[in-house]
Amino acid sequence: MEVSQISQQLITAKVKSGKSFSELGALLGHDEVWVAALLYGQASASLDEIEKLKSVLPLTDEQCASLAECPLKGLGPVVPTDPLIYRFYEIMQVYGMPMKAIIHDKFGDGIMSAVDFSLNIDKVEDPKGDRVVVTMNGKFLPYKKF
Amino acid sequence: MEVSQISQQLITAKVKSGKSFSELGALLGHDEVWVAALLYGQASASLDEIEKLKSVLPLTDEQCASLAECPLKGLGPVVPTDPLIYRFYEIMQVYGMPMKAIIHDKFGDGIMSAVDFSLNIDKVEDPKGDRVVVTMNGKFLPYKKF
Amino acid sequence: MEVSQISQQLITAKVKSGKSFSELGALLGHDEVWVAALLYGQASASLDEIEKLKSVLPLTDEQCASLAECPLKGLGPVVPTDPLIYRFYEIMQVYGMPMKAIIHDKFGDGIMSAVDFSLNIDKVEDPKGDRVVVTMNGKFLPYKKF
Amino acid sequence: MEVSQISQQLITAKVKSGKSFSELGALLGHDEVWVAALLYGQASASLDEIEKLKSVLPLTDEQCASLAECPLKGLGPVVPTDPLIYRFYEIMQVYGMPMKAIIHDKFGDGIMSAVDFSLNIDKVEDPKGDRVVVTMNGKFLPYKKF
Amino acid sequence: MEVSQISQQLITAKVKSGKSFSELGALLGHDEVWVAALLYGQASASLDEIEKLKSVLPLTDEQCASLAECPLKGLGPVVPTDPLIYRFYEIMQVYGMPMKAIIHDKFGDGIMSAVDFSLNIDKVEDPKGDRVVVTMNGKFLPYKKF
Amino acid sequence: MEVSQISQQLITAKVKSGKSFSELGALLGHDEVWVAALLYGQASASLDEIEKLKSVLPLTDEQCASLAECPLKGLGPVVPTDPLIYRFYEIMQVYGMPMKAIIHDKFGDGIMSAVDFSLNIDKVEDPKGDRVVVTMNGKFLPYKKF
Amino acid sequence: MEVSQISQQLITAKVKSGKSFSELGALLGHDEVWVAALLYGQASASLDEIEKLKSVLPLTDEQCASLAECPLKGLGPVVPTDPLIYRFYEIMQVYGMPMKAIIHDKFGDGIMSAVDFSLNIDKVEDPKGDRVVVTMNGKFLPYKKF
Amino acid sequence: MEVSQISQQLITAKVKSGKSFSELGALLGHDEVWVAALLYGQASASLDEIEKLKSVLPLTDEQCASLAECPLKGLGPVVPTDPLIYRFYEIMQVYGMPMKAIIHDKFGDGIMSAVDFSLNIDKVEDPKGDRVVVTMNGKFLPYKKF
Amino acid sequence: MEVSQISQQLITAKVKSGKSFSELGALLGHDEVWVAALLYGQASASLDEIEKLKSVLPLTDEQCASLAECPLKGLGPVVPTDPLIYRFYEIMQVYGMPMKAIIHDKFGDGIMSAVDFSLNIDKVEDPKGDRVVVTMNGKFLPYKKF
Amino acid sequence: MEVSQISQQLITAKVKSGKSFSELGALLGHDEVWVAALLYGQASASLDEIEKLKSVLPLTDEQCASLAECPLKGLGPVVPTDPLIYRFYEIMQVYGMPMKAIIHDKFGDGIMSAVDFSLNIDKVEDPKGDRVVVTMNGKFLPYKKF
Repeated sequence: MEVSQISQQLITAKVKSGKSFSELGALLGHDEVWVAALLYGQASASLDEIEKLKSVLPLTDEQCASLAECPLKGLGPVVPTDPLIYRFYEIMQVYGMPMKAIIHDKFGDGIMSAVDFSLNIDKVEDPKGDRVVVTMNGKFLPYKKF
Repeated sequence: MEVSQISQQLITAKVKSGKSFSELGALLGHDEVWVAALLYGQASASLDEIEKLKSVLPLTDEQCASLAECPLKGLGPVVPTDPLIYRFYEIMQVYGMPMKAIIHDKFGDGIMSAVDFSLNIDKVEDPKGDRVVVTMNGKFLPYKKF
Repeated sequence: MEVSQISQQLITAKVKSGKSFSELGALLGHDEVWVAALLYGQASASLDEIEKLKSVLPLTDEQCASLAECPLKGLGPVVPTDPLIYRFYEIMQVYGMPMKAIIHDKFGDGIMSAVDFSLNIDKVEDPKGDRVVVTMNGKFLPYKKF
Repeated sequence: MEVSQISQQLITAKVKSGKSFSELGALLGHDEVWVAALLYGQASASLDEIEKLKSVLPLTDEQCASLAECPLKGLGPVVPTDPLIYRFYEIMQVYGMPMKAIIHDKFGDGIMSAVDFSLNIDKVEDPKGDRVVVTMNGKFLPYKKF
Repeated sequence: MEVSQISQQLITAKVKSGKSFSELGALLGHDEVWVAALLYGQASASLDEIEKLKSVLPLTDEQCASLAECPLKGLGPVVPTDPLIYRFYEIMQVYGMPMKAIIHDKFGDGIMSAVDFSLNIDKVEDPKGDRVVVTMNGKFLPYKKF
Repeated sequence: MEVSQISQQLITAKVKSGKSFSELGALLGHDEVWVAALLYGQASASLDEIEKLKSVLPLTDEQCASLAECPLKGLGPVVPTDPLIYRFYEIMQVYGMPMKAIIHDKFGDGIMSAVDFSLNIDKVEDPKGDRVVVTMNGKFLPYKKF
Repeated sequence: MEVSQISQQLITAKVKSGKSFSELGALLGHDEVWVAALLYGQASASLDEIEKLKSVLPLTDEQCASLAECPLKGLGPVVPTDPLIYRFYEIMQVYGMPMKAIIHDKFGDGIMSAVDFSLNIDKVEDPKGDRVVVTMNGKFLPYKKF
Repeated sequence: MEVSQISQQLITAKVKSGKSFSELGALLGHDEVWVAALLYGQASASLDEIEKLKSVLPLTDEQCASLAECPLKGLGPVVPTDPLIYRFYEIMQVYGMPMKAIIHDKFGDGIMSAVDFSLNIDKVEDPKGDRVVVTMNGKFLPYKKF
Repeated sequence: MEVSQISQQLITAKVKSGKSFSELGALLGHDEVWVAALLYGQASASLDEIEKLKSVLPLTDEQCASLAECPLKGLGPVVPTDPLIYRFYEIMQVYGMPMKAIIHDKFGDGIMSAVDFSLNIDKVEDPKGDRVVVTMNGKFLPYKKF
Repeated sequence: MEVSQISQQLITAKVKSGKSFSELGALLGHDEVWVAALLYGQASASLDEIEKLKSVLPLTDEQCASLAECPLKGLGPVVPTDPLIYRFYEIMQVYGMPMKAIIHDKFGDGIMSAVDFSLNIDKVEDPKGDRVVVTMNGKFLPYKKF
């Protein structure tokens, strides 16, 4: 679960800029999660988007090139031990089979795409403790019979 | 990623009953995902809820006892290979660090609870292909300084 | 890399019937690889397709139900040790990065779908030794920016 | 799933040259996939082929020596988490047993060689979404009885 | 089970200062275990707490920034081999199921929070050999039915 | 993380008896955690203790013999996925190095015994949510120089 | 490293027959190692060879069918712990890179086939202790440039 | 399956010298496989042998010291993915149990030593494709009863 | 770390006989550790030794045959979690490199045989706590240069 | 199974000094195995012992500090592949259960301490081949009932 050196530099540049991911997202016209995925080396940007980022983050040529690449994605095949990330892994441990059953009931044999896909995170204030609301939206892909 | 024998029997009973998870959820007053989690041995029910289930599923005494237990949860520590379940694992591989960054930006140092938590699955019809929408809602738990 | 008991029974029934996968494919109007995937519990059939199969294989009710289900797919997360299957795994070890580079050159940032997908196997006779030709055909899915 | 430092340099040199793998393949008289395999350290070139590459890529002596070596091949024994590469791994999870069954039906007890082997990738345009077509062609090797 | 370079530097600074964790805890108004967690990169401090630390430890700007971050927590997914740490892992191996049973008896279906949580270590002198007393105090979180 | 068949039977006998672990502990003159460890096959009892247990649980001869044996202890070497047990594993991930540092500060080079050891679990009522308090008490064993 | 039930039966039948593998090899016209591979489910026999085996071993119809199949080969992906088998694994650990270097020096870039391959074991008597001589003979397969 | 930096340097020195392993073997009076094992850090040489090597390879003092050490042997516990080395691993997967059975038939309960052991590789020319012949010769060690 | 069913039966027969391993060792003329290894399926006995065992243990024919076989040895490749067995594994973790260094100092490059080997366990009474003394005695095998 | 950089330096200093571990042991008044454990970072020394070491080894201040620390012990959780160290691991594979049985026969339910523990290695000359004798001496710790 290593973060690459270039991602570390991009995150540091973002911290120094004082911008939140939400502000960077508004600048680029994308969701804040997608911008975070870009800085963590999990998505690739157009040249136009990179120019916009350069207006607020002091990016080197190498960093710009890295943002334009189609990166090797993923954290590596081990189970994460960071508690925040592990909780999402645990949700799949506990609710993976139920989710498969419900998707089957509603859609038939197929999967939810993780590529034609978006993910948002909202904060819902609550006097008993604020709540994190994560919304995943992916295209259903039916298994093709050939 | 073994499904236990008793869960297999419960799923078979549900299939024979012709009921969808959505109908079982309406009967029990719970979300369909929670009902699927119950039948897959990931949640426990009250005696009252079990009685309601018995009205539509022919449950044995052993099966009823199993539904009332606090089960050993989780699928076991291996990476799943079923494509539908793997996609959710991949989402954590690709978006795990970005989600941590966004939650940090919005809430500070802490986690989203996977226990004080709910999960819903909706079908959104779309002419370019229907979409699966998964909503997770968990309480934010800040790290306590002691 | 366990084959389930019900798949074993289906393969045995197929062997006893004297039919090749190619003949079963012609009967169902599908490719022989898809039919083999069905008998190995990696695909699901319609009731009509199951009726056709029953005309040549003596299937029990339980076997028919199993063919209609959306199965838990995959062989489990270990590296296979059967030499024939391992060679395909090795091809990904050796050619995985080159394939990623070529698909990137030709299509941009995205993946080949393994769901909107077909796979065929042909035998090409050759005096220096017959050749196996495997053709995979999957839809390109570009990464969506959200 | 680390790419070696020297492969990184070769890929960077290729990017700077503005050449596609297809153009490099035409220069060397080989398929673009083989050229990508060469730059990723999975194949070895003749001195003549290295001279041709030097005409378009500014290679150091150490890089030339590396291209002439018989390299340690493979990505290492872990399951890849890059989504594009994982899909091919998943195809083997889902279709590995069916492929073994079909090759057995058509050829008998043996394997498809991953050494006397070629692999091509084509783009087939399609209004519903372009398709990736991967063709693998390997010699059948029957098990020898001794 | 790697300790990060910055944690190593922080521990060295603490050793050079001649302060015990107990003294640092008194300075910050926190338990010594929490202070050790902070220096080992498992907790984050406020700017005020960092200022207090700077009064006794010669911290660089980078080290201060690191103490204010929400760190990637955990030691990585392998079983520890240091004998002191392994003993606590073994306690979970031997007493994990019994602890689950007792918590179930006393509280019902749920977990002890590892986030709304504190941990103390006391030394109890004993002529037959001093004893280590570890006290964990975590909020009970009942599983929510949704 | 399998529970053995004989442990399953003992837990079932306990459930049928209607006794809590606390009541069984009072009967045997031991802590409830130790009694749970005994029924889960992680501790061994004297003949006298087994006789007392037989007065409230209908034990077979084979079950009595199993309780008197020195059992193969531990859950097996995988990371647990049950959320309740995982939290304790996570505590070691997050607080393992800090605990080692504090024990070193207070005791020197050595370990806390997991054999000359006891473990208690208390429920502390709290209007903001009840708390689980786990107390571990183990002899400090200094490393011997030889 | 499980031996299948049917292999166990075949080995038992061989032991009861009093025949050595060498005698069975003479009967079938094959090397004793190949016959052992056949009984351990790693090779497949012709109907004629099965008939010859039936003349000395009392084989059931199911066992005969198993011998004619193209089996799932290999012991599974774990490192063996039986000392005799482990020594051969250790030889690859220690001499794997040297063997690659020597084969490269003598043959160029390619592999030794494990399919167009034979293996013999001889006993060489020696007053200082008898010696095991293992001879492997496989076709060299050069990497094809495509 | 990392090759150490010092082994890399020794192999580079050998390549620059233009000597084959066979020529180095003749110089030292040892088999070429043993010399390759020496350069790959899997064997140790006498001072006399190191002097002979220095006459053809320009060795530094550190490299000479490394050749005289009793090295940490082995490639590490993962399954190799280089195809040439994997084939030998696969041979043990397929023929491991048969080899154990034949050695048992011929020698009784014991192992072939991997220490009092030699290994040779020969090239046998063949119009249908040259063949690699590997000969392993190890002392049989019977299990001692104590 | 499974004990086989037949070993379980043999241990049960030993317990019912009331004999200690020490008494069985005296009967067979072997050390008690070797006898325990025999009953746990890690060693093989002569027919004469089996006859002696039958005089005190009621062995079935299948059990006698099992004792005469050359067994598949070892517990499987996982790290043991039983505390008693783990301590010996930990000793290798902590003292493995030191033992290699001392054996090198005293004997040169080679290993201690685990086959031409014996192991004894003694109890040394001590008022501060009895001590376990384990003595291993194995032939030194120097690495052969070939 | 990595040796740390500082341990490498300490071993190099020892080699340059020309002292054996036995001579260093005599200097410090400890067994040679303990001294090797100290240099390999598995034990900690007093300031007085470090002064004595400095009289024969040219130690830097950082190296002295490292010798005084309570180190992170163990080689990491993988199975060793160095043949000398593996043999001791194999001994636990083969004799682990028998040792547990014998210790149980002689001492009851408990373990041998790996902390209140010493280990010696002797060379016993023998015309048939010298023998390595390893003696482990650890306190028996009975499981406490609480």
